Amino acid sequence: MKGVVVKQTDNRNELVLDDMPKPEMGHDDLLIKVHHAAVNRTDILNRKGRSGYAVNPILGVEVAGTVVDANDSQSFAVGDRVMGLVNSGGYAEYAVMPVDRAMKIPEALSFAEGAAIPEVFLTAYQTLFWIGQLQHQETVLIHAGASGVGTAAIQLAKQLRDAKVIVTAGSERKLQVCRDLGADILINYKEQSFDGEVRQATDGQGVDLILDFIGADYWDMNLASIKQAGRWVLIGVLGGSELSKVNLMSIMSKYIQLTGTLLTPRSDAYKAALSKEFAGVVTDYFKQGRIRPIIDRTFPVEEANEAHQHMEDNQNIGKIILDMNDGEA
Amino acid sequence: MKGVVVKQTDNRNELVLDDMPKPEMGHDDLLIKVHHAAVNRTDILNRKGRSGYAVNPILGVEVAGTVVDANDSQSFAVGDRVMGLVNSGGYAEYAVMPVDRAMKIPEALSFAEGAAIPEVFLTAYQTLFWIGQLQHQETVLIHAGASGVGTAAIQLAKQLRDAKVIVTAGSERKLQVCRDLGADILINYKEQSFDGEVRQATDGQGVDLILDFIGADYWDMNLASIKQAGRWVLIGVLGGSELSKVNLMSIMSKYIQLTGTLLTPRSDAYKAALSKEFAGVVTDYFKQGRIRPIIDRTFPVEEANEAHQHMEDNQNIGKIILDMNDGEA
Repeated sequence: MKGVVVKQTDNRNELVLDDMPKPEMGHDDLLIKVHHAAVNRTDILNRKGRSGYAVNPILGVEVAGTVVDANDSQSFAVGDRVMGLVNSGGYAEYAVMPVDRAMKIPEALSFAEGAAIPEVFLTAYQTLFWIGQLQHQETVLIHAGASGVGTAAIQLAKQLRDAKVIVTAGSERKLQVCRDLGADILINYKEQSFDGEVRQATDGQGVDLILDFIGADYWDMNLASIKQAGRWVLIGVLGGSELSKVNLMSIMSKYIQLTGTLLTPRSDAYKAALSKEFAGVVTDYFKQGRIRPIIDRTFPVEEANEAHQHMEDNQNIGKIILDMNDGEA
Repeated sequence: MKGVVVKQTDNRNELVLDDMPKPEMGHDDLLIKVHHAAVNRTDILNRKGRSGYAVNPILGVEVAGTVVDANDSQSFAVGDRVMGLVNSGGYAEYAVMPVDRAMKIPEALSFAEGAAIPEVFLTAYQTLFWIGQLQHQETVLIHAGASGVGTAAIQLAKQLRDAKVIVTAGSERKLQVCRDLGADILINYKEQSFDGEVRQATDGQGVDLILDFIGADYWDMNLASIKQAGRWVLIGVLGGSELSKVNLMSIMSKYIQLTGTLLTPRSDAYKAALSKEFAGVVTDYFKQGRIRPIIDRTFPVEEANEAHQHMEDNQNIGKIILDMNDGEA
């Protein structure tokens, strides 16, 4: 079968669609004919050789497709349309997925839309609810609001908790999308200092929860934006990971809870539990059109390098999808 | 009445026992004839003028004594022996205490022992259970094991959760006290690198929870001592508050939850809820002698300066108590 692997060419790591062996099913796996895969930053790190947890030379951590071998599953049958996380191997004609994390694609959604759901919606669900403990009508600050996780988090926070959602993004075009998804307060970080805007929007109190994809560059402004006893979930370091000065008293005196997390390296059991709860809670919202996956652009798998470059340029609003299937529905 | 206030003498802030007005009771207060007060680091900060939340010129945040005016309380009567947190004003003949945080002194205990309970046991309870979410038979690393909070935390973690308790302290004398209170693994931080010892004692896994009174000096070693997805509660910065370099990836990749907290500046409602739950859960353990307050030394109130110096010398094991009552029982 065809699968996308990394080859070094002229000292650059390039993606190449190559002939690869079909993956071997484990006892608790589904075999899936992949229709669409989605691009994640972890794939870019893998391509650049900076990540330590690739267990498969084929990139890709999420797919949507059709079950072609259901093993002895009671929950899934051949022909079912499924989506979910894979332990790499997603940019391929076939992928294996542990059955206990597979989710049925809601009927109203296409395969491309299914591929746009798992990583960003599960990350948003995990960080907002499992780690961030977002409560009814609390206030949440979501950085990179137009990113894949951002667009998922805005909708989940609004629809599931009626939260007050404050977003940052770097263009009016991105902020407009955030508004359409339900964001209440829009901050263009290139034109405004977000901490001042956040304090103004919260009567000087700050927010209950921050979803932080940025890290070092926003550290001080996040500190100034969080409420006493607020929760701060660190899920990315797009703005650097090295802090040159931290005063621990600022964390103590504000009773801040700072939690770091990643999704891809989590255990199979964790991914299964998260996927199961998410599907149980959110599927109806997809069916009713109250929450929707946001696709920026779909690339044919042969243009995987261009798809990565598009993400690295930070121009996308929502997910970047790879079509594994020659445009077939 | 007599009360201890701060006076500047020769550019030093000294404690002076002075004539002060008797405190005025609010509608929801008890008036208490103070038998004993206890010394806390927050008092030292107040004396040095470094703390911003003193609402009363008289120092002291916890007392044990006798109710002399119960207001219209249904729960307390004149003559009841009570202990609890006060919003400063503890080093005095009389103090007022919001009734909803007052706790009856268990019969087996003296007033001095009662004064040794509130601040350190409530802090230990809050950090182990409310914030640290310590579960049955988890592993907890308690720094400054022979300190007031340390001696309380060892006992609460052992008796209420059957936890595996690892402590650090700076002398064999202190470690022996920790062992007597139930600590399982004793580390003399002056002779051993505690992170290596912790990893050895946990099969390389690290601990589920760290109670950190130290801050900057232990940052890297705490990072190396904590388990994946462990909780880290920052409750003191005896080893400095300024970190010159932090890599946020270390927090993300280990899924660490770092929470800062303080008790003294918390709201009245918080202190009331914490005191109520603590008294409900732990009083029987005091009655049965399974948990006991640890007193290092009792000073007459006239020697409050010496009592502060004793704490600043870090020689105490457990609490330092002020006798407000001329040694009367």
